[in-house]
Amino acid sequence: MKIDAIDLFYLSMPEVTTDADGSQDALLVRVQVGPHVGWGECEASPLTCIASYVCPMSHGACRPVRESVLGRTLDEPADIARIGAELRFNSMDLLQAPHTFSGIEIALWDALGKRLGEPVYRLLGYKQGAAKLAYASQLFGEAPAETERRARAAREAGFHAVKFGWVNFGRGTVAEDEAHIEAARAGMGAGGKLLIDAGQIFGSDVAAAAKRLPGLARGGAVWLEEPFLADALEAYGALSRQSKQVRMAGGEGCHSAAMARNLIDFGGVGFVQIDTGRIGGIGPAKEIADYAVARGVTFVNHTFTSHLALSASLQPYAGLADHQIAEYPFAPRSLATDITVNHILPDADGLIRLPEAPGLGMTVNAAGLRRYLQDVEIAVAGSILYRTPALSD
Amino acid sequence: MKIDAIDLFYLSMPEVTTDADGSQDALLVRVQVGPHVGWGECEASPLTCIASYVCPMSHGACRPVRESVLGRTLDEPADIARIGAELRFNSMDLLQAPHTFSGIEIALWDALGKRLGEPVYRLLGYKQGAAKLAYASQLFGEAPAETERRARAAREAGFHAVKFGWVNFGRGTVAEDEAHIEAARAGMGAGGKLLIDAGQIFGSDVAAAAKRLPGLARGGAVWLEEPFLADALEAYGALSRQSKQVRMAGGEGCHSAAMARNLIDFGGVGFVQIDTGRIGGIGPAKEIADYAVARGVTFVNHTFTSHLALSASLQPYAGLADHQIAEYPFAPRSLATDITVNHILPDADGLIRLPEAPGLGMTVNAAGLRRYLQDVEIAVAGSILYRTPALSD
Repeated sequence: MKIDAIDLFYLSMPEVTTDADGSQDALLVRVQVGPHVGWGECEASPLTCIASYVCPMSHGACRPVRESVLGRTLDEPADIARIGAELRFNSMDLLQAPHTFSGIEIALWDALGKRLGEPVYRLLGYKQGAAKLAYASQLFGEAPAETERRARAAREAGFHAVKFGWVNFGRGTVAEDEAHIEAARAGMGAGGKLLIDAGQIFGSDVAAAAKRLPGLARGGAVWLEEPFLADALEAYGALSRQSKQVRMAGGEGCHSAAMARNLIDFGGVGFVQIDTGRIGGIGPAKEIADYAVARGVTFVNHTFTSHLALSASLQPYAGLADHQIAEYPFAPRSLATDITVNHILPDADGLIRLPEAPGLGMTVNAAGLRRYLQDVEIAVAGSILYRTPALSD
Repeated sequence: MKIDAIDLFYLSMPEVTTDADGSQDALLVRVQVGPHVGWGECEASPLTCIASYVCPMSHGACRPVRESVLGRTLDEPADIARIGAELRFNSMDLLQAPHTFSGIEIALWDALGKRLGEPVYRLLGYKQGAAKLAYASQLFGEAPAETERRARAAREAGFHAVKFGWVNFGRGTVAEDEAHIEAARAGMGAGGKLLIDAGQIFGSDVAAAAKRLPGLARGGAVWLEEPFLADALEAYGALSRQSKQVRMAGGEGCHSAAMARNLIDFGGVGFVQIDTGRIGGIGPAKEIADYAVARGVTFVNHTFTSHLALSASLQPYAGLADHQIAEYPFAPRSLATDITVNHILPDADGLIRLPEAPGLGMTVNAAGLRRYLQDVEIAVAGSILYRTPALSD
């Protein structure tokens, strides 16, 4: 069957703040493959992705994303890999392309799963999905008391693992950071898993990051996430070698499988966190799940948005029972919740499971999303290259 | 002084082909800093860059490029570095941002140089510029006879070094590639430097690339450029270790200084090729020139477009007399030639020198560019975020 249509929808909350909260807008993708509809989501700047999808070609290695996808054949998983390889070559000089293609690739898997009547994870070769331990992913409070309150709320909501990140971490003194770590531990109790996300705050300053290691160890943190810029491999490697107890986590910034392999091989991370909405989709993420297994590294999803994105992000390691921890957006904006009709909810033990349904197993709530839909129009030299299409199922 | 205005101009040839020829369009940047005007150029998809400059914020770490630049202070080189660091943090999740910022950063150096009455390379700490040996950068012919003809034409035009790349290299048999290398050598004579550019054709297939090494060595090639995808560090490292005579070159795909350092540290390249229009501008490129010196690697500019871009790309290593070779666009489209009034021309020995004039030393030909100017309009939710401004000096 042919990929007949690809539609991009820019959705946004009425107000977007400078919070490090990726659930404030979304780029939703709908593909039509014969009679089958698939949905995906980019974790990326919507307007920039739309432009990279429709832009005029600059030269043979800087072609718009649509040129490598629209009209192509989709009958089996190998077709998606082939389209991805073609896109990487045709758009190698179009930097935004992997972010844009990610949501399209996810939608292709959803459509293919629906066509073949299988959940995506089975198309990836897993016989069954394993339960994952959801961690409540949230931002630090401004003050330690607020961090403690949020940790307690997550525990009371049934989570056995909590991650705090961003806000003031790494911006003030070491003692201030340690007070937040202690507060988080106090709020969640002795038994829970505590994860800390530095949000790239140390740039490539290994010494500054290393000063936080003793406090992280005392607080029993499982990992220190993204201490550095996404491609600061030398700094990652140096800090990994210094840290005895707390392992490094990173990878959400990876926009290719090669970049994630580099973070494992040269950055020495213990946890590789992949966002299927950025790395180029589910296929490259599965490649990294396999690579992580081979290298003794733990694969973790990165998801801070909708349950459509959550399902996509869990598929690549669905069958890896030993890679149990999973990021779960704890308090997203209403847009992220409203993207799907159904949701992936933690059970009493804080475990989540993928839907046993074809494709991604999520039903997009097209009618309910219209209030978030942003009208976009892009014109070049008098031709309209993009105009927001009608949002329907 | 404040950065009062930043204007982006999308220029294009009337027809753009699938040739791997980056001179077919351009994104020209004009900045206004008090009474001073600076010009720069992005080596990137123009429409996508424009969208990333004006896009609505997605969250605190995915802000439009303009938010980190417009209205900021520019009095000295350190201000440009500070703006760059702020941009990297504020737009870490906006993948296109480094490509877009590159042209802006270049324009800021041009404006600062004009204000301080110094060529940019002196602001970078070089006392004087050294002559560079220009290599004529061009595409392989379809058949070896055409490659030979092009090599001869370059030699007759006074070039002592020639680079061939792309087209069918790596797509057919090893023997076919060797015939092209022999033809290039025949056309340019025994004395000239021959450089070969594989244009990422081998993906990450080390064995396929390695098969070309004997032919490259027999042809006396100085380097094999971009055998692999830009971030395939493992493959680069493996091929570098295998190749005794021909060294690897790469780096044009680097969109951060860290990425270029990784290519040196883990990819083992002997030549690091930096495009100031992609890596984030002149500052990050100078950082890599310093790093290359420290690691015994040769810095080379990457330029396939205008002489404005050529001047920008030569500044970061202008004072490094031992890093002599320089890429020179041999047969660009008229747009690239028309961007500047003055040009950097090889002397009788095939050497080029930077203008001894403030800033980049190039005069942009605004009036002559209007025929290439593309009208662009981008509207979101009823607001026009971008409309092509008037192109004047």
